[in-house]
Amino acid sequence: MNEVKVFCPATIANLSCGFDVLGLCLDNVGDEMIVRKTAEKGIRITKIEGANLPLETEKNVAGVALLAMLEEVDADFGFEIEIYKHIKAGSGIGSSAASSAGAVFAANELLGNPFTRKELVKFAMQGEKLASGNAHADNVAPALLGGFTLVRSSNPLDIIKIDSPDELFATVIHPQIELKTSDARSVLKQTVSLKSAITQWGNVGGLIAGLYTQDYDLIGRSLHDEIVEPLRSVLIPGFDLIKQSALENGALGSGISGSGPSIFALSRGKATADKIAKGMSEVYDTMNLPYEIHVCKVNDTGMRVI
Amino acid sequence: MNEVKVFCPATIANLSCGFDVLGLCLDNVGDEMIVRKTAEKGIRITKIEGANLPLETEKNVAGVALLAMLEEVDADFGFEIEIYKHIKAGSGIGSSAASSAGAVFAANELLGNPFTRKELVKFAMQGEKLASGNAHADNVAPALLGGFTLVRSSNPLDIIKIDSPDELFATVIHPQIELKTSDARSVLKQTVSLKSAITQWGNVGGLIAGLYTQDYDLIGRSLHDEIVEPLRSVLIPGFDLIKQSALENGALGSGISGSGPSIFALSRGKATADKIAKGMSEVYDTMNLPYEIHVCKVNDTGMRVI
Repeated sequence: MNEVKVFCPATIANLSCGFDVLGLCLDNVGDEMIVRKTAEKGIRITKIEGANLPLETEKNVAGVALLAMLEEVDADFGFEIEIYKHIKAGSGIGSSAASSAGAVFAANELLGNPFTRKELVKFAMQGEKLASGNAHADNVAPALLGGFTLVRSSNPLDIIKIDSPDELFATVIHPQIELKTSDARSVLKQTVSLKSAITQWGNVGGLIAGLYTQDYDLIGRSLHDEIVEPLRSVLIPGFDLIKQSALENGALGSGISGSGPSIFALSRGKATADKIAKGMSEVYDTMNLPYEIHVCKVNDTGMRVI
Repeated sequence: MNEVKVFCPATIANLSCGFDVLGLCLDNVGDEMIVRKTAEKGIRITKIEGANLPLETEKNVAGVALLAMLEEVDADFGFEIEIYKHIKAGSGIGSSAASSAGAVFAANELLGNPFTRKELVKFAMQGEKLASGNAHADNVAPALLGGFTLVRSSNPLDIIKIDSPDELFATVIHPQIELKTSDARSVLKQTVSLKSAITQWGNVGGLIAGLYTQDYDLIGRSLHDEIVEPLRSVLIPGFDLIKQSALENGALGSGISGSGPSIFALSRGKATADKIAKGMSEVYDTMNLPYEIHVCKVNDTGMRVI
C-alpha cells in the first residue's frame, strides 16, 4: 500500500456532564485525508483544501501528531499529506482532532499498523497541544476509537471505549460566530462547589451506566451540566432557545459541544434527530443567524479507510 | 405469613471516587431482624439486642422508616419488631441503614410486597435522616438492592443497581475508635478544585465501566479519591499504613468506608481478601489498637429473608 485515503470524523467532547473526560464520534461529518509514501523521508503537507491552515509540518496539527508518532517507530520512507477540511476550525466539533488523529491513523496503515488505535491517541494529542496549548484526548480518542470514550485519566493516559447504543443519533448546530477556545476557557472557574461536583459525578456514572445498558431514558436523565454550561452558554447566542427547542422536540438531552459554539442534542432514532434539527434551524432562522446543521448516527467505528 | 426474619447486610458507601453516590452490599456481615404482624395497629419495637438504641418508634431509625412507609400503604394490622444488631453503630459500614432498610423490607414482605425494593429506598432514607440529619441513600440503596448502587440523583431519587463482578471481595477493618459522622462531615470543604473534580468524575466513570465489563484492573485504577480521603483519613489512626498494606497484598484499591473509621479494600478472589485481612490486622496489632475485621464477597442480592 503506497497511499491511503481516510475519513476523519467530527466529534463531540464533554457531553454535558463529562467535562474533559467524555466524547463521542459522529458518523457522516468529517474531513478526508490522503497520505502517501514518499521515497524522501520526512513529512510534507502538500495540499490543504477547505481551510486556511499552515502547510509547515511543525505548525500543522497533522504534521505535529505524525512527528510525535515517528519518534517511536522507524519508517524507511517519508509521508506526503493532503487534507480536505470539511469541519470548520473553531466549530467545537473537533476540527483539529480530526486532522491530528487522521494523520497518525493513515500513517499507521501505511506502516502496517504497528500501533493499536488506542496507542495512537497519545500521538494525536500532540496535535491538540499545538492547537489549544493543552494535550487533551477528549476529541482525538472518540475520533480514533469511535462510539463513546471516557478519558479516565490523562496522566497516565487511560481511555475506555464504550460502544454506542444502536439507535443513538446526534443533532449538531453550528452558529457561524467566532468563539475562541481561549475565551471559552477563560470563563471557567477554577473551583466548584462540592455539591455541584457530586451532582456531576452522579450524572457521569448514570451516563456510563445508560450506555452499557442501552437505557436511553437514563442517558437522557444524566445529560446535565451544572458546572460549565451555565458559564459558557452565555457566550453562545440563542443557547437556551436552541436547547429548549431540542428538548421539546424529543431530545434525550442537549448541551454545548466541546467548548462551543456548536450545540448538540442526542436522541433515539433518526426521525427525532431530524425533527430536532428542524426546530433548532427555526430558532436561528428567526434570529437571522447563519448556521450549519448536521444529523448523524453515532459512529461506533471511528476513523476509517475509504 | 405472620412473621418474617430478615438478614440486614452491612454496606460500604462512597467507594473512594464516588462520594455520596456509590455504595456496595456486603455478604456475611449484618444484623437480623424479626418483624411480626400484631392485631393492634401501629409499630412497637419490643427488643433490641447488641446495641443500646431507643425502643421508641419515633426515635429509632427502623421505626421512623416503617412509619414513612405506612403513610403510603394501608395495613390492617400492626408490626412488632425485634432487632439483633451485629453491625456496630458508628463503624462506617451502614449500621443505621441496615436497620432502616430491614424494617421496611420485612414489613413489605408481610404486606405481600406492594413495593419494589427500589421503591423501599425512599422510606429507608427517612431512617437515615433521623440518624444523621441527612436523608442519604448511599447505604440503604445497596442494602436493599445488593451489588453496587449509583445514586445518580437524590432529588428526584434515581438509583441504578449494577451487578457485582463475580469474584469481587471486600476486606473491611473497623478500628475501635469513635468517629462521629458530624466530625467526619465537618472536615469537608464546601468547594473543590475543578481539576480534582474532573479527576474524580473520570474515576467514577471508570469504576462504573469496570463493573459492567468485569474489568478488575480498571476497577482498581478507578478506586482513587483525591477530594475527601485526604481530609478524612487524618481522623483514622494508621490509615496510610492500612491502605499501603492492602495494596501491597494485592488489593485492587482501598479507602475509607462511608465516613469511617472503617477502612475497606476490594480484591479479586477470597484468597487475596484473606491475605489483605492478615496484613491489615498486623498493622493494628503492632499499634495495639483493637479492631474488628471482615472478609466478605460482594452480596449481589441485598437484604433477604432467612
